[in-house]
Amino acid sequence: MLVIGELINGMYQNVKKAIQAKDKSAIQKLAKDQVAAGADVLDVNVGPASADPKAAMKWLVQSIREAVNAPLSIDSTKADVIEEGLKIAGKGSTINSTSADDERLNVLLPMAKKYDANVIALTMDKAGVPRDINKKAELALKIIASSMEHGVELEKIYIDPIVLPVNVAQEHCGELLEAIREFQVLCSPAPKTIVGLSNVSQRALERSLINRTYLVMAIANGLSAAIMDPLDKDLMDAMITAELILNKNIYCDSYLEAYRKK
Amino acid sequence: MLVIGELINGMYQNVKKAIQAKDKSAIQKLAKDQVAAGADVLDVNVGPASADPKAAMKWLVQSIREAVNAPLSIDSTKADVIEEGLKIAGKGSTINSTSADDERLNVLLPMAKKYDANVIALTMDKAGVPRDINKKAELALKIIASSMEHGVELEKIYIDPIVLPVNVAQEHCGELLEAIREFQVLCSPAPKTIVGLSNVSQRALERSLINRTYLVMAIANGLSAAIMDPLDKDLMDAMITAELILNKNIYCDSYLEAYRKK
Repeated sequence: MLVIGELINGMYQNVKKAIQAKDKSAIQKLAKDQVAAGADVLDVNVGPASADPKAAMKWLVQSIREAVNAPLSIDSTKADVIEEGLKIAGKGSTINSTSADDERLNVLLPMAKKYDANVIALTMDKAGVPRDINKKAELALKIIASSMEHGVELEKIYIDPIVLPVNVAQEHCGELLEAIREFQVLCSPAPKTIVGLSNVSQRALERSLINRTYLVMAIANGLSAAIMDPLDKDLMDAMITAELILNKNIYCDSYLEAYRKK
Repeated sequence: MLVIGELINGMYQNVKKAIQAKDKSAIQKLAKDQVAAGADVLDVNVGPASADPKAAMKWLVQSIREAVNAPLSIDSTKADVIEEGLKIAGKGSTINSTSADDERLNVLLPMAKKYDANVIALTMDKAGVPRDINKKAELALKIIASSMEHGVELEKIYIDPIVLPVNVAQEHCGELLEAIREFQVLCSPAPKTIVGLSNVSQRALERSLINRTYLVMAIANGLSAAIMDPLDKDLMDAMITAELILNKNIYCDSYLEAYRKK
């Protein structure tokens, strides 16, 4: 399981303030804390914090780079903001995200090729977020085909079936778990899958419990990666234990500690 | 999910002492506490507590019956001890358990028919516990066929693929999850599945965390029932949340409380 830390996002008030005040140390602390807690990659999203998102992305990436070496997931709806981040983020970067629309794929996949970046690709298009598994699979196949056409290796693609909140789209939550499983038979080797986990508990009261339960269920269905809060210790413990059960780490009594030290 | 409370078992020191001292109130408290915490059924196992297990089973069932109405799962390796319990346990009882051996099936399935009882059937035979999914499925099919021959409705059968401890059979834990999923395509309607959950964490340090993570993964794979500790609140919360995600209960902010009140 690849853990992408979600906390550097301008939609959060503390990050928004840090961007506006150019408070490097606040951003750097978030970067260090997430890496220390087990994040493999850090998501970087300017959010609504700045009138000049390209400049804000550049500042964010530079600030983080002074503090940690972890690969970054450059998160924006705007291709030019993503490229601004990729230019200076360095090796192992991820583009977050493209949809399955041709006009997005035809811009972001060549960009992935140019910067040797991973790509998070959402199974949605202009028609919206399909809830039907077959339609999701159709969009996943379109993404896979487009990646091959653009010469982006399949192992660089993370297909995101799009988590919806349990309190407004409850029937969708189980279907998404089946979609994660189905995607794995679309091609060989199986494509990687990713979820933006916290969305499942938007506006719910039991956020941490719902997040970790959903993550464990998704891991049981073969999930490869999640954008999530690595500072939620219960969430990380649940993830580490799910991986233990799937024999991804060797059992020892102190397996939680051993995982965190690795 | 059917929750079978596991705490009335003579292998536990408190229960052993209660059986030997004929301390009804200790057993009755365990029965009431488990039902209050959400157990649908109570497992009753004399364990190694008595030289006369039939008499001990009778006393246990009578004691529980004076306190609660919940159906009982009569748990013994000896058919005559099981029948002693079934005689007085009343409606909705469960036989725990038969193996896939003919000499067990040919005794316990007619007994199930006679007492209109459910049956927990382990996918093991004299050759032991198979780890191979195909062999497990073969034994499950044998159980299903034998049930049909004996006129026991399939909805009364709970197939148990046998949980092994993660610290000694780690590679088996994931395979068991796949077995739960595979069993569901063996016949239509899908057979019910059950696990003896706590076995996964035998002699492990993080028992509660491992138990609840495994339960959630098993539920994601279609598990119908578990023998477990209903007094472990974190475990029950995880189970309730997994069922919420699978749309088995309607979301409300107080869904945990709502479940417990139902």
